[in-house]
Amino acid sequence: MLPRLCVLVALVIGCSTMVRAAEDDAQRFLLTRASTNQRADHFELSHRDVEHGGEVPWSVYKQTLRGGKQEGSELITIDNGSLEIVIIPTRGMSILEVRSGDVRLGWNSPVKEVVHPQFIDLDTRGGLGWLDGFNEWMVRCGLEFAGHPGKDVFTTNTGDRAEMDLTLHGKVGNIPASEVELIVDPQPPHRLRIRGVVYERMFFGPKLQLVTEISTVPGSDSLTIEDVVTNQGAGEQEIELIYHVNYGAPLLEEGAQVHVPAKRVTPMNDHAVSGLERWQTYDGPTPGYIEQVYLVEPISDRSGRSLALLHNAAGDRGTSISWSVQELPYFTIWKNTTAVEDGYVTGLEPATGYPYNRRVERAAGRLATLGAGESRTFRLDFGLHLGEDAVGQAADRVRRIQGDTEPELVRSPPEIPDAAE
Amino acid sequence: MLPRLCVLVALVIGCSTMVRAAEDDAQRFLLTRASTNQRADHFELSHRDVEHGGEVPWSVYKQTLRGGKQEGSELITIDNGSLEIVIIPTRGMSILEVRSGDVRLGWNSPVKEVVHPQFIDLDTRGGLGWLDGFNEWMVRCGLEFAGHPGKDVFTTNTGDRAEMDLTLHGKVGNIPASEVELIVDPQPPHRLRIRGVVYERMFFGPKLQLVTEISTVPGSDSLTIEDVVTNQGAGEQEIELIYHVNYGAPLLEEGAQVHVPAKRVTPMNDHAVSGLERWQTYDGPTPGYIEQVYLVEPISDRSGRSLALLHNAAGDRGTSISWSVQELPYFTIWKNTTAVEDGYVTGLEPATGYPYNRRVERAAGRLATLGAGESRTFRLDFGLHLGEDAVGQAADRVRRIQGDTEPELVRSPPEIPDAAE
Amino acid sequence: MLPRLCVLVALVIGCSTMVRAAEDDAQRFLLTRASTNQRADHFELSHRDVEHGGEVPWSVYKQTLRGGKQEGSELITIDNGSLEIVIIPTRGMSILEVRSGDVRLGWNSPVKEVVHPQFIDLDTRGGLGWLDGFNEWMVRCGLEFAGHPGKDVFTTNTGDRAEMDLTLHGKVGNIPASEVELIVDPQPPHRLRIRGVVYERMFFGPKLQLVTEISTVPGSDSLTIEDVVTNQGAGEQEIELIYHVNYGAPLLEEGAQVHVPAKRVTPMNDHAVSGLERWQTYDGPTPGYIEQVYLVEPISDRSGRSLALLHNAAGDRGTSISWSVQELPYFTIWKNTTAVEDGYVTGLEPATGYPYNRRVERAAGRLATLGAGESRTFRLDFGLHLGEDAVGQAADRVRRIQGDTEPELVRSPPEIPDAAE
Repeated sequence: MLPRLCVLVALVIGCSTMVRAAEDDAQRFLLTRASTNQRADHFELSHRDVEHGGEVPWSVYKQTLRGGKQEGSELITIDNGSLEIVIIPTRGMSILEVRSGDVRLGWNSPVKEVVHPQFIDLDTRGGLGWLDGFNEWMVRCGLEFAGHPGKDVFTTNTGDRAEMDLTLHGKVGNIPASEVELIVDPQPPHRLRIRGVVYERMFFGPKLQLVTEISTVPGSDSLTIEDVVTNQGAGEQEIELIYHVNYGAPLLEEGAQVHVPAKRVTPMNDHAVSGLERWQTYDGPTPGYIEQVYLVEPISDRSGRSLALLHNAAGDRGTSISWSVQELPYFTIWKNTTAVEDGYVTGLEPATGYPYNRRVERAAGRLATLGAGESRTFRLDFGLHLGEDAVGQAADRVRRIQGDTEPELVRSPPEIPDAAE
Repeated sequence: MLPRLCVLVALVIGCSTMVRAAEDDAQRFLLTRASTNQRADHFELSHRDVEHGGEVPWSVYKQTLRGGKQEGSELITIDNGSLEIVIIPTRGMSILEVRSGDVRLGWNSPVKEVVHPQFIDLDTRGGLGWLDGFNEWMVRCGLEFAGHPGKDVFTTNTGDRAEMDLTLHGKVGNIPASEVELIVDPQPPHRLRIRGVVYERMFFGPKLQLVTEISTVPGSDSLTIEDVVTNQGAGEQEIELIYHVNYGAPLLEEGAQVHVPAKRVTPMNDHAVSGLERWQTYDGPTPGYIEQVYLVEPISDRSGRSLALLHNAAGDRGTSISWSVQELPYFTIWKNTTAVEDGYVTGLEPATGYPYNRRVERAAGRLATLGAGESRTFRLDFGLHLGEDAVGQAADRVRRIQGDTEPELVRSPPEIPDAAE
Repeated sequence: MLPRLCVLVALVIGCSTMVRAAEDDAQRFLLTRASTNQRADHFELSHRDVEHGGEVPWSVYKQTLRGGKQEGSELITIDNGSLEIVIIPTRGMSILEVRSGDVRLGWNSPVKEVVHPQFIDLDTRGGLGWLDGFNEWMVRCGLEFAGHPGKDVFTTNTGDRAEMDLTLHGKVGNIPASEVELIVDPQPPHRLRIRGVVYERMFFGPKLQLVTEISTVPGSDSLTIEDVVTNQGAGEQEIELIYHVNYGAPLLEEGAQVHVPAKRVTPMNDHAVSGLERWQTYDGPTPGYIEQVYLVEPISDRSGRSLALLHNAAGDRGTSISWSVQELPYFTIWKNTTAVEDGYVTGLEPATGYPYNRRVERAAGRLATLGAGESRTFRLDFGLHLGEDAVGQAADRVRRIQGDTEPELVRSPPEIPDAAE
């Protein structure tokens, strides 16, 4: 039986027809490829449209947004039958939200639209322009730099070291994907994969490629992000990568808790010292609340992976992130339990470092580098845990990784090394 | 009789059909709504197309511009039978011009295209990037800040007060509207209203909503702008708003005059002192002319409203602005009677303050603040006065408001308070 | 016989039909004109489609790019039967590349897409944002300023001299053309002309118009750029213009050579001193190579024109630039023979000055100025020389212009005048 392509609705601008990426693989669907000048404004596909799509109902839907600052932004929604995962190719393959019944991974930012990068100026407001578009559940900070704004050195065309102003959380979240593809595994369980390629590259600067695959199994309550970052330049390249994963209601609420196996927990600045004892517990929306940030040295299990769990006050709804501590050795908890109108949110952030300015990270020895042509892979698994049992099991896993180690609470923020001033 | 919708031409990108905003109100027409992903590239409607449109011929026409830096900018033209009012939803609901026979409210800027915000970088040229798009008859400066560029303090995510570079005249004039609607009053005189919503909002920053209604009665020679600015954040928010209303030929010419009831008139800087005695009178185009700016403390009538009149040398063509001094207590006259090629223009500017940098305005006590959820309304009426009689009547109205008060001419610019340095 | 317009494929957004520019000239085809709100997304024409198109096969093809950062960029390809010339109206009428068989004028930048200006922020990275889009064969640097980033003075609205940060290589390469037209000469040899108009203008700033005509004769192996820059403002205006013409493989390789008749050759900085003796010879790709730049005072022939030739190591493939030394009195050789991945390239740059910051150029007396309404014309001819004979003839021409003058090699970079600090 042939795939029922007649129900495939596709409008491609810039090429005559929507084509599959490869003749020898009937289950790849190309949505965007700059190198061949293809981009679909609209796309729809469901399990009924492909030969080996499985029995579990699923669909993938792509739309282009209109109006205000979202003009031209693209959204791809994977409905795996249990989760709806909303991906933003136009914003560096960030994930806007994940919906499942009345639970939602995501938050309510005062930024309501999916802002197109044409309206973003990262350098404005002393380097805080990134905040004009910040409303995603998962946004990557990086790739050349990922932390706080401020001056750092770089190498110019003349070979000199000069100063530049780094901007908050880097560029990659505001670069549109150059390639986007849907892949439906022909073998059970027919995993659905959205593969995106984002380039952060310039002349006399970084030549970094991010290949991301956001995937889920139909009917499951989990998803996986697998990213490969490659230095396509001929010289060594510093990189930073923070997975800024953000949660509001209903998971975040007064009495909600975060669990993560920790060797050591350190307040990021003086202000966070006061809340150190309660680092695992959240307040309700608190007008005027100033963010409190905690730096965690995570512990891993024997396979090298760690697990962070966020659950509501009742402990009957939770969500987890599992990641490799070799790939992402640092973890940051961002508590921003301010008023609902101002963005009540917490960020759980597995990363290659902490969110200080890059000059601080370099001085502290937390900067990763990639040699010419070298790649690094990062895999994160995200799960939903509904019901007390499911939450309890996830909490037990965190506890087992923690084992007998008592997390050390450091009473003062790290000293910022002189070299970083 | 049913509305004759067959002649309604509408192309909506992002939704299947152009729909009226509410079933219970047959005379609302939605042009843009980001929240439901709707935006019409093109739209046309006339008095013949709606059931209760009245007998006076009118039409509304929307187009999307192409070519150069205007690519993607939208224009809505209301032809009320006497005036053609051209609104720019893409540029914060500014008004490009108002045409009536051979009279035009507007001016000839060296910027000829309706520049799309994608081509604007407000921070460039030491914060003067706003000038790359400046050619409107009426552009709002604001909302977080509205005056000259330069450093001012703001509150960062960490609760610290930091410095940022304010950019000239703020952001709102370069933000595309998130919602645009045409409303035709079912009752006589069937006022036509273009309602727009513009958001100046970010995370860790202002959450300001501007709802504007630009309206006119078919057959009349006047229009009204009614704006409501709301602080949607949970904390107090400083705001600034300047209505930068600009006129060139044919109203502006050698010997043209401005009349405004004034308690006090102060030159904005040393350079303007020399022209103080002639503050009401305009020169012809003067190559190399350096702008002269006068700060006016306006007087209001018993209803709280003031009136500014600009008329040509012969006194047979004029235009007026009427506004509430409670809403907009300050008035600035910007004389820029330079060469035609460089932009021969004057600006009449009712405002919440003067166009100094915000730190100066704060120190001088002229900054407005909005509490959480609080709104302020601003209404301005604009009229055309054709013929000596009409101009004379408007001048009489200004004179009556002035009454016996002699305007005080201050011989030196205000001292800039130390706190503002 | 009427032109066979039936095969003309044209999609114009913003106007009802693709029209010829003038009724009295059947061989003009309008692709973009902002003033009448016209822009074609797609266009095709060949010698068979016009009455007087000649016998030599040629075609012109326009497309709009999709995906990644090239979204919305336009390309016009002139195939003259021998050369394919790819023009970018969206990026200031730059030329991406010229292809002829297995020879290519152009280079392989790490920037692979034709980046749309909406994704460019010239001010970022200390004013190096221009490098985010740099991959053209020919890009103009200018028009208000054209050199290195850094502070310079300018005149503000208040008539004061203030400081601004100039950005690398100016703005004109990131401004979309406001007018684009194809003209087919009705007379033999039926020269094909793409005429574009780009405006670099703002209020309180430059009002510069660039009219460029990029033309070629069907069947020939050469092309001509003729630019007219006009100051449309009422005051005097400084201008700078560098033709940044860039070559990679196959012409650039180890042992490739550049020939240009020179009075004097000066290293641009200390680093370039070491390579001075070998200024005419190129290295192969060299990872970690730091650019070396040489400033040439060119000699002209009796007609006032000079000639630069680049050829490969074997001397059997070359390309030349011929220009007027009155129009463009300075010539810069940019050697950037770094690794292939980082952009192995050389730039040959006829210009109004050298690529120092404008304050240096002003102090050195190399700044051009245009009076009110004044124009300057710049014409450059580019040729391909295939085979030893053709390359040898071009080298002879350079030698004849050089004559008996021995080029003076200056052993140290120019002193930067104090006034420029």
